Amino acid sequence: MAVAELTAPSICPKSNLRSSQLSYLSARFNSRRHQSFHLLRRVRSARISCSVNSQSPPVAVKTQDPKSKSSDCYGVFCLTYDLKAEDETKSWKKLINIAVSGAAGMISNHLLFKLASGQVFGPDQPIALKLLGSEKSFQALEGVAMELEDSLFPLLREVKIGIDPYEVFQDAEWALLIGAKPRGPGMERADLLDINGQIFAEQGKALNAVASRNVKVIVVGNPCNTNALICLKNAPNIPAKNFHALTRLDENRAKCQLALKAGVFYDKVSNVTIWGNHSTTQVPDFLNARINGVPVKQVITDHKWLEEEFTEKVQKRGGALIQKWGRSSAASTAVSIVDAIKSLVTPTPEGDWFSSGVYTNGNPYGIVEGIVFSMPCRSKGDGDYEFVKDVTFDNYLLKKITKTEAELLAEKRCVAHLTGEGIGFCDLPEDTMLPGEM
Amino acid sequence: MAVAELTAPSICPKSNLRSSQLSYLSARFNSRRHQSFHLLRRVRSARISCSVNSQSPPVAVKTQDPKSKSSDCYGVFCLTYDLKAEDETKSWKKLINIAVSGAAGMISNHLLFKLASGQVFGPDQPIALKLLGSEKSFQALEGVAMELEDSLFPLLREVKIGIDPYEVFQDAEWALLIGAKPRGPGMERADLLDINGQIFAEQGKALNAVASRNVKVIVVGNPCNTNALICLKNAPNIPAKNFHALTRLDENRAKCQLALKAGVFYDKVSNVTIWGNHSTTQVPDFLNARINGVPVKQVITDHKWLEEEFTEKVQKRGGALIQKWGRSSAASTAVSIVDAIKSLVTPTPEGDWFSSGVYTNGNPYGIVEGIVFSMPCRSKGDGDYEFVKDVTFDNYLLKKITKTEAELLAEKRCVAHLTGEGIGFCDLPEDTMLPGEM
Repeated sequence: MAVAELTAPSICPKSNLRSSQLSYLSARFNSRRHQSFHLLRRVRSARISCSVNSQSPPVAVKTQDPKSKSSDCYGVFCLTYDLKAEDETKSWKKLINIAVSGAAGMISNHLLFKLASGQVFGPDQPIALKLLGSEKSFQALEGVAMELEDSLFPLLREVKIGIDPYEVFQDAEWALLIGAKPRGPGMERADLLDINGQIFAEQGKALNAVASRNVKVIVVGNPCNTNALICLKNAPNIPAKNFHALTRLDENRAKCQLALKAGVFYDKVSNVTIWGNHSTTQVPDFLNARINGVPVKQVITDHKWLEEEFTEKVQKRGGALIQKWGRSSAASTAVSIVDAIKSLVTPTPEGDWFSSGVYTNGNPYGIVEGIVFSMPCRSKGDGDYEFVKDVTFDNYLLKKITKTEAELLAEKRCVAHLTGEGIGFCDLPEDTMLPGEM
Repeated sequence: MAVAELTAPSICPKSNLRSSQLSYLSARFNSRRHQSFHLLRRVRSARISCSVNSQSPPVAVKTQDPKSKSSDCYGVFCLTYDLKAEDETKSWKKLINIAVSGAAGMISNHLLFKLASGQVFGPDQPIALKLLGSEKSFQALEGVAMELEDSLFPLLREVKIGIDPYEVFQDAEWALLIGAKPRGPGMERADLLDINGQIFAEQGKALNAVASRNVKVIVVGNPCNTNALICLKNAPNIPAKNFHALTRLDENRAKCQLALKAGVFYDKVSNVTIWGNHSTTQVPDFLNARINGVPVKQVITDHKWLEEEFTEKVQKRGGALIQKWGRSSAASTAVSIVDAIKSLVTPTPEGDWFSSGVYTNGNPYGIVEGIVFSMPCRSKGDGDYEFVKDVTFDNYLLKKITKTEAELLAEKRCVAHLTGEGIGFCDLPEDTMLPGEM
C-alpha cells in the first residue's frame, strides 16, 4: 500500500512504552507478523488516525518509508507480535482480512460485531476488519471502530478504516459490499443502476488490483445482481464464480412464510431456492422446497396460495417491516449475510442447499450465461460452491424464471458501458425494486 | 397469566393444517410442552397478535378459557411440541424465559439477536424472548419480532411482545431492563430519578408477582444503580442479590484505555473494577488492575495519567462516540450486557473478576449497606456470584469510593417514596450523568 505522506491528525498519541514495561511484553513481540489495531485514512494526502484518545492534542508523527508495511500504523496500534507465542492463541488459524463497504451504515453496525465475535468464522479464526466509508461518513467510521475496541473481542486483531477502496481492499480475503447510494425521490431504476454501477465498477477494479487472488465477494448494495456483474467484469483477474449477490434474506423469508403456512417450525423447511434477480421478479421456488423432507406441494395443499400469495408475502416483508419498525431491516439482513458466509465456509447439510446470486456460466439449468442469477448451490465448506443437480421445473416455474432472466438481461444492457461491453441502453419497462429497499 | 378477553387484530390467520399434513407432524407434537412462537398484547382489553402476515384481512378468533396457558396464542403460533422427540434437539436444556424491556430500542435491537443466536447461553439452550415495550413502541416491537422470525434462529422457540410487565415477566428467569425515559431538556437528575424510579418500582412489583423466584435482573436504564435499588425494594420475594446494575461497559472501556496506554492488546488487562455509581463519580480502579498479571502501576509508570486522565477517558468515551457516530453506543452496550450475563453463567477465570452493581449487604469492603454499588465479583457459573476478597485500597481509592458512596446515599434519599422508606428528599449537588447518556 503506497502511502505518500504521513501526517498525524489530532487524535493519536504515540505509545509511551518504557524499557521497564517492554520486559513484560518483549516475549510476545515478533516483527514477522503484523497484527495491530490500526486505522487508516487517505484524503488527498494520506493520513493515519486511530479511533481512540480523541481528547488528546495533536501529536507529530515521524514520516516513515511509504513502502514499508508498517507505514500505515504507529504508536499503540503498531504492536507487532506473534499469536503463536501465546498459549491461548497458538492454535489459532492465520489472520484473515475482511473488507466491508458501507461500514458506517446500520447493516454493517450489526454485521461487524457478529464478525468480530467469532460467531461467523469460528472461535479460532482471528480477523482483521477493513472498513470502507465515504468522506461524509468518516467520523461515523471512527465511532464504529471505537465501539469495536470497547467490545474487547479477543479475535479482532486489526481494524482499519478508510475511504479509498485501493487501500481498504488490500489483501482482502472477503469483501462484503454493503454500501450503495439509496434511490432518491424521482430517481428511476435505470438511474440507480448507473449511479451504483459506477461505485461497483470502481470497487471491482480495486479488488482486481489489490485483493487476494481468491477473494470471495458478497454484494449486498442494490441492485445487487447487476452490481455484482459490474464488479466481476471489472475484476478479470479474480474468478467470476467468487462473486455473489445476496438473496439469502429472501430465502430466509421464504422459509419463514412456508413454515407459517404449514404450521411447522421454520427449521423443518429446506431446499428453498430463490431464482433470479433480487427484485420483484425473483422466484421463491416452492416446487423443489421441502418440509420435513416432503415436497411442499404435498404439505401445503392450498396451491392457489403458493402460486398467488406466497411470492408476494416474501417480497412485501421488507416494506411491512419499514411500516412497523420505521427503519429497514438491518438486523435480519446482517443475519442473512452471516448465513451466506457460513454456507460457504461450512459443508452444506446432506440433501439440502442454499441460494446465492452467482455468475451463470456453466450452470446446468439452461439460464443464459453472462449474468448474475440466484440459483441453488452446495459447498464443501472451502469457500467455493457447486450447482445443485437434482432440481425439477414445471411450466409455472420456467415461466417465472424466464421473466427474471429477461429482466437481468435488460439490466445488463443498461450497464454495458460499465462492463466494457459497449454503450449502455436502458429499456426497463417497470419498477421492480423490492418494497422496503428504496 | 389472566387474559380477560381475546379479540383478534388484523394480522393473524388461523393455522390451515389439514389431516393429511398432520401425519407428517404428529410424531413431533406433544401437548406437555408449550414451545410456540406467539406474541401477546394487552391494551386495556387483552388482545393477541402475531407479527406475521400483516397483509391478511381481519380474522375472528375464538375466545378461550382465560386461565388456560394456551389462551395467549392461537393458530400457527400455538404449536405445542416436544424438543425431546427430535434427534437434533433432544439433548437441549430446558427452555428459559428471557424478558427484555425497552425491546424496541437500539440496544435491544443488537442484544435480542445475540440472545437468539445462541452466543450468550450456548448452542443447546433454547430460549423464549418476552419483549416489553410501550403503547407507542408496539408496532416497532412487532417489527422486531418479524425480523427475529426471518432470522430463523433454531434456538429461538418463542417470542412474545407486550406492554404489561405483569404479563411479559411471567416466569422470567432473566429480566434485562433496558427501557427508561431519556432526560428531556431542562430536566434535572432528580426529576429523572423520580420518573424512571416509578417505572422501576412498577417493574419490581411485577417481577415480584410473576417472575421466577430466582430471576436474575440486570438494570441498564439510567440512573441504573438507583433504578436497580428501587426495583429490588419493590420485589421483596426475590433475593436482593439477584439484582444487577450494568457497569460492564465502563469496565470494558477502562480495560481498553489501560491497554492503549500500556501498548498491549486489551486481552492482557485483567482485574479491573468499577466501584460505585454508573455516573461521573464512578471509580475505575487502577490500583488492583493488572496487565499481563503485573499491577498496572508497575506497567504504566505515568501515575499522573492514571490519577488525572484515566477516569475521564473512560467516562468521556460515550460522549466522544455520540460526537463521532451521531448516536449513542448501542452496539457496544449490547456487547457489555452479553458479557455481564456470560460472567454469571460461566465460571470466572482463575484469579480474575468482573464488575457489577449489586446490593451492598454483606460486602467485605466496608461499603455502607442498603445501596446498589458496583464491586468486584466472581461466579461459579451458576448465575450467582460472590464478592472478591483480595483487593487492596489506598487513600486515593478510598477517597473516591467515599464520594460515589455519598452520591448513591443521596440518590437513595431522593427515591425514599419509591422504596417504601418514607418521603423522598432530593439534595443532589451536581450533575453526574455520564456524557453520552442524556
